Amino acid sequence: MAAVQACNILITGANRGLGLEMVKQLVENAPQEQHIFATCRDPDGPKSESAKTVGSLLGTKGLNLLINNAAILAKGIVKTSKAEDLKNSFTTNVIGPLLIIQEYLPYLQAAAKASGMPGMSCNKAAIINISTIGGSMATMPPMFGKFPVLPYCVSKAGFNMLTVLAAEELKTDEILCMALHPGWVKTDLGGKNATLEPKESIEGVLRVIGGLTEKDQGGFLDYTGATLPW
Amino acid sequence: MAAVQACNILITGANRGLGLEMVKQLVENAPQEQHIFATCRDPDGPKSESAKTVGSLLGTKGLNLLINNAAILAKGIVKTSKAEDLKNSFTTNVIGPLLIIQEYLPYLQAAAKASGMPGMSCNKAAIINISTIGGSMATMPPMFGKFPVLPYCVSKAGFNMLTVLAAEELKTDEILCMALHPGWVKTDLGGKNATLEPKESIEGVLRVIGGLTEKDQGGFLDYTGATLPW
Repeated sequence: MAAVQACNILITGANRGLGLEMVKQLVENAPQEQHIFATCRDPDGPKSESAKTVGSLLGTKGLNLLINNAAILAKGIVKTSKAEDLKNSFTTNVIGPLLIIQEYLPYLQAAAKASGMPGMSCNKAAIINISTIGGSMATMPPMFGKFPVLPYCVSKAGFNMLTVLAAEELKTDEILCMALHPGWVKTDLGGKNATLEPKESIEGVLRVIGGLTEKDQGGFLDYTGATLPW
Repeated sequence: MAAVQACNILITGANRGLGLEMVKQLVENAPQEQHIFATCRDPDGPKSESAKTVGSLLGTKGLNLLINNAAILAKGIVKTSKAEDLKNSFTTNVIGPLLIIQEYLPYLQAAAKASGMPGMSCNKAAIINISTIGGSMATMPPMFGKFPVLPYCVSKAGFNMLTVLAAEELKTDEILCMALHPGWVKTDLGGKNATLEPKESIEGVLRVIGGLTEKDQGGFLDYTGATLPW
């Protein structure tokens, strides 16, 4: 079975939910000399310093795997959604990941160059954007009655666009970039009625990530490896 | 040929480009007793008053056709895009249209009820969101080198999600809602290298709008009537 063997990994939103579960499972199966940077929001922290601090710890191997997992969910339908909720969702779910990519891009480029491996993989250099089927125009409308989360869906559709454009731009750097739907999971974000436990979701997510190749560049998969429509 | 015969029409961003051309062509072919409200940005104007003023002029017929045309374009690729440009694009291109829909929804509902016609059409009650193929995840990546406009694309993908969710939510009100790509047009936004003149684009746009039925609910068409992928 394909597995994540990346040396240096950074995960955002790692203080709870799926991010925390990812860190746990990665630590359990960690190869030697692996660094996992588990980050979370720190509104009062020094912003631009964190990437430099991580960079100095990474050394010449660079950053192999960046997992943009942090996200917020705001509810609303067309009639009730508040501008503030759309703005905050977009800031956290789209602008945040873009700034993270910009900050860590030099370290991802370094990892791609240092690897010596052909093609693309999460063990070489990859950006995994944890998205959702809620960002799928083709799939979301019939689910909207059950999941009235317009600000979240709108932001995740934007996030999917960021993903495909990043995949296009960064392919010359041999950095893999794709969007992943982790399923509907019992977390603070997913709620208690969700169908999956974090353990099951993340086992699937890490299996999928471990098996990615350049064929998945700019793709949209779920935690079972199935392709989703935009 | 199908034509726009809606009594009461409101167009945003009507001071230039496609919006202005729309107003011109609609006025040329206007049926009797038609009101066209051509709106544009007025940062210093009284915000919440405008919908009430329009409402009082509409009378019992309500608003038949709302065209969300206003948009801004900001350039950038992953490496260079500025948070501020993403934020401003999202505010104007997504939050703006949502607030417009919320403000005018009572008048669209009134028009749907007052019409007495079965099904959906732009002459009964419709929201037309002027989107772009640049918001299509399936189509944009290979065009990204020629059109390095990430903040615009990301916002328009979000706008497309708003469109499909609005279509889902407002179908019980019999309000038609869809996304329309006007082509690449020689306007301030499209630039001088564009392939279409505003006249040709808007002739197509109005032909498409005029022929819409409930089968187009939540759809994504271009100015020739062709269906686009998300």
